[in-house]
Amino acid sequence: MPDATSSASTTTTGGSESLTLMGAGLVGSLLALYLARHGHRVDVFERRADPRLAGPLEGRSINLALSDRGWRALEGIGIGDEVRQVGIPMYGRMMHDQRGQLTNQPYGQDNQAIYSVSRAGLNRKLLDLVEAEPGVALHFNQQCLNVDLRDHTLSLRDATTGQEQLWPFGRLFGTDGAYSVVRGAMQKTDRYNYSQNYLDYGYKELHIAPGPGGTWQLEKHALHIWPRGQYMMIALPNLDGSFTCTLFFPYEGPHSFATMQTPAQVQAFFEEVFSDAVPLMPDLTADFFDNPTGSLVTVRCFPWAFDDDVLLIGDASHAIVPFYGQGMNAGFEDCSVLNALLKQHGPDWRTVFQKFQNQRKPDADAMADLAIYNFEEMRDRVADPRFLLQKKIESKISAQYPGQWLPLYSQVTFSHIPYAEALANGQRQEEIMRRLMPHIQAEADYTQPLVQTLLQDEMSKLH
Amino acid sequence: MPDATSSASTTTTGGSESLTLMGAGLVGSLLALYLARHGHRVDVFERRADPRLAGPLEGRSINLALSDRGWRALEGIGIGDEVRQVGIPMYGRMMHDQRGQLTNQPYGQDNQAIYSVSRAGLNRKLLDLVEAEPGVALHFNQQCLNVDLRDHTLSLRDATTGQEQLWPFGRLFGTDGAYSVVRGAMQKTDRYNYSQNYLDYGYKELHIAPGPGGTWQLEKHALHIWPRGQYMMIALPNLDGSFTCTLFFPYEGPHSFATMQTPAQVQAFFEEVFSDAVPLMPDLTADFFDNPTGSLVTVRCFPWAFDDDVLLIGDASHAIVPFYGQGMNAGFEDCSVLNALLKQHGPDWRTVFQKFQNQRKPDADAMADLAIYNFEEMRDRVADPRFLLQKKIESKISAQYPGQWLPLYSQVTFSHIPYAEALANGQRQEEIMRRLMPHIQAEADYTQPLVQTLLQDEMSKLH
Repeated sequence: MPDATSSASTTTTGGSESLTLMGAGLVGSLLALYLARHGHRVDVFERRADPRLAGPLEGRSINLALSDRGWRALEGIGIGDEVRQVGIPMYGRMMHDQRGQLTNQPYGQDNQAIYSVSRAGLNRKLLDLVEAEPGVALHFNQQCLNVDLRDHTLSLRDATTGQEQLWPFGRLFGTDGAYSVVRGAMQKTDRYNYSQNYLDYGYKELHIAPGPGGTWQLEKHALHIWPRGQYMMIALPNLDGSFTCTLFFPYEGPHSFATMQTPAQVQAFFEEVFSDAVPLMPDLTADFFDNPTGSLVTVRCFPWAFDDDVLLIGDASHAIVPFYGQGMNAGFEDCSVLNALLKQHGPDWRTVFQKFQNQRKPDADAMADLAIYNFEEMRDRVADPRFLLQKKIESKISAQYPGQWLPLYSQVTFSHIPYAEALANGQRQEEIMRRLMPHIQAEADYTQPLVQTLLQDEMSKLH
Repeated sequence: MPDATSSASTTTTGGSESLTLMGAGLVGSLLALYLARHGHRVDVFERRADPRLAGPLEGRSINLALSDRGWRALEGIGIGDEVRQVGIPMYGRMMHDQRGQLTNQPYGQDNQAIYSVSRAGLNRKLLDLVEAEPGVALHFNQQCLNVDLRDHTLSLRDATTGQEQLWPFGRLFGTDGAYSVVRGAMQKTDRYNYSQNYLDYGYKELHIAPGPGGTWQLEKHALHIWPRGQYMMIALPNLDGSFTCTLFFPYEGPHSFATMQTPAQVQAFFEEVFSDAVPLMPDLTADFFDNPTGSLVTVRCFPWAFDDDVLLIGDASHAIVPFYGQGMNAGFEDCSVLNALLKQHGPDWRTVFQKFQNQRKPDADAMADLAIYNFEEMRDRVADPRFLLQKKIESKISAQYPGQWLPLYSQVTFSHIPYAEALANGQRQEEIMRRLMPHIQAEADYTQPLVQTLLQDEMSKLH
C-alpha cells in the first residue's frame, strides 16, 4: 500500500497526473490501462480480493457476449487477438421449442459472430495487464465506505485487516458498477437525477455438462434460447464443453420462483418445458437451490461528472439488463470514447468530462431501452414464425439496399453507430416493416411487384 | 416524552393499536386525526420545532391552492368550513402580458374556485386539532436518523438536547415528505423501484405588498400568471392584502438564475418582462437575493408498503411539481382513500396497505405527469390566443354535452375522478380538439354545421 498522502494528490508534471479508480472489474481494469497509456499514474481500488489468487478457473463460468464495440476497445490496448483465442464465436441464435425442435437465426452476414467469453477469465487477463503496466498500482480488499466530494477523499476499509484509511484523490473515476458507492455520493448533491428500476423477473445460473472427452452436447457456435413466452432459458458455450445456462423467470405468478419450492417441482417443470435440455443438466435441482436468484436492474442517472473531479463510467452510470449482450460492450465503448476525448482535449479534464457525459448519455439511455425491448423479443417473439419471416425479409432488404438498411441487431452488435442513432434507425425500419408485412405470407412474396413497389416507395422516403 | 418501550409496541385491544407517524406536516397531521378516529393510539414525530411556538403568523406566507380533493379530506374530520373561512377563493387565472394587459380565464363554471390558503396557517390549525385529539401524542424536534425495518425501530435525535433514542414501532407511517427518511430505508430493500427527477427550473418566492388599508393591489379572487414562454411568475392572494409571488425560472441559459447576479440586473429584467408587477414589489431585489432558490423534484417509487409494517403516504411516496396545485390535495386524498379502506377492511392492515398502494400508485403517476404538463401550459400556452380559443370551445362542448365532457382541469380540480382516469379522459378530449380546431377560427365558428357534425361524430365514438 503506497503512502496515501504523498501519492494521490493531483500532480501535473508534463500532463501526467495521479488518478484514482474505484473498482477493478472489467471496465475499471480496461480504463486503468487507457489512462496509464496517456501517461498518468493510476491507483485502482477494488472491494474484492484479487480473483487471480483463487486458483485456476473452473470450467463453469459466467460468460459474456463480446461484440464489435468491446473488441474495438480491447484492440485499442492491443489485446484483441489474445482474447479472441479464448472466445467461442456464436454465429446465430438457436431456438429450442417445447418438443426439442431447433430453428436457427443467423446474427449477421457471412462470418459475423458474437463471442462467448468467460467473465472471470477476461477480468484476470485484464488484471495481469494492469499489474504489468508501469504507473498503475492495484489495491485489493479495499471497500469504499464513503466518498467526500468536497474534501476529495475516499474512506476505505481493508477487508483483511479491518483498518480504515482516508485516501485523498485528485481525480476519481467511479468504475464500481451498478451499486456504485461513488454514484451514491453524487446522488446526494443538489438536483441529481437518478432512477433504479427492476424487472419483475429474476435470473438463475444453471449448467449443461460437457459431453464425453470435453465435447459440446449442443451446437457449439450458437447462443441457445428456449423461448417460452413469459420466461426463457439461454445457454452460452464454454471452452471445456459445458454451457452456462441462465433461466429468466418471474418472481411471482403461476410459473415463478415463488412457486418452485421443491426439487421435484423444479424437475417436473423443466422436464415439461425444457425437455431437450434436462438430460444434459445432471445438477439441475442442486444448482437451482444452491445458486442465488439474481435481480435485473436498470440504473439511469445524470450528471455523470462532478465538476472536473469525478466521473462515473460503465455500469456505475448506466447499468442495463443483459438481454442485448451489451452491458460490458457499452462500458468498454465508454473507454474508447473517453480515450478519443483525451487525445483531442489533452489535460482539459473539464471539457473531456462534459463532452463525455453529453455525448454518451443519450446512447446509454437508448441502450437501456433496447436491452429491455430485446427481452421480449428473445423470450417471446423469436418463437413466432411471423417474426422469423420478418427477420428473413429484413435480411433480403439489407442485401438489396446495402448501405441503406443495416438490421437493428447488426447496428448494435456489429457496428459502431451510436446506440441512440441505431435505436432511431431501428424504429424507422420497424415502421416500414409494419406497412410491408401485411402483404407478405412467405419468403417468396418478397419479389412480388406490389411489395417491391411499396418498399421502393418507403426506401425513397428513408433518406 | 412517553416511555419508548412501553408505548410503541403493537397492542391489539379491541382493534386499537399503537401507531407511529414520522412527519407532522400537512399530510401527517391530517392522517394522525383519521387514524385516531379509528380508535388507534398515535405517536407523531416531527423533525422541526412546533411551528405554533414561533409567534403569530406574518402576513407573508407560502400559500397553497386547496381544491375539491383537499376539501373532502378536511370535511371528513369536520374542519372544512373553518378552513374555508381563512381561504380566498380564486375563480380563474388572470394572465398579465408584457404590457400589463389582462386576460381572464375562469377555472370552472359558476362559483367553482380553488382556494388560496396559508400553508403555515393550515398546518397550525391541524396541529391544534391533533393536540386536542384523545390518543394522539405529538413529539417535536425529533429528527429521524434511521429506520430499521427488520427490528421495527426508529432512531431519533432530539434537536434540542442532542439525545438519541431508539423508538420501537409496531406500525409506521412515513409522512416525512419528498426527502423521506422512511422511504430511504425502504429504498435499500431488494428490488426497490425509485426515481428522483429534477426540472431544469428553480423557484424563488417574492412578494407583492398590500395596498393602503390592507387592500389588494391586483384582483383578489384570481390566480395571477405572468406567462413568458420559457419562464413565468405567479401570484396568490393573502388575507392581509399582499400576494405571494413565485418566479419559476431556468437555472442556466440567457435568462436564468445563473445570469441574475446583481440587484441592478434583477430590477432591469423585471421592469422589462413583469412591468406591471414591479411597482407593487418594493422589496423585489432584497427578496430575490435573500430568499433561497428552491428546486423542483418529481419522486416516484414502489412499493409504498413494507409488509404490513410500514406505509409511505403523501409526498414521501409521490412528490410532484407544484404546477397543478395538487401536491397537498393528492396527499389529503391519500388520507381519504386510506380512511375508506380502513372502514372496509378494519384491522386487516395487510389488505389495507396492498389495496392502498395498488389503487393509488397509477393515480400518483398520472398526477405527476399532469403536473409537469401543466407547467408548459401555464408558462407558455396560456399566452397563446389559439389556446384560449380552444379552452372557450371546450367550455361550449362541456355545456352542450353535460355529463359527457368535463374539461381536464375540472376533472382534476373540481371532481373526485381518479387522477389516472382524468388523464386518460383528457388525452381523448385533446385528440378530439386536434381534429376540431383546424376548422375553428373564432368562437362563433362553433355553431357551423361542419364543426357540429364533426363533433357529433367524435362524441358518438367517445362512449
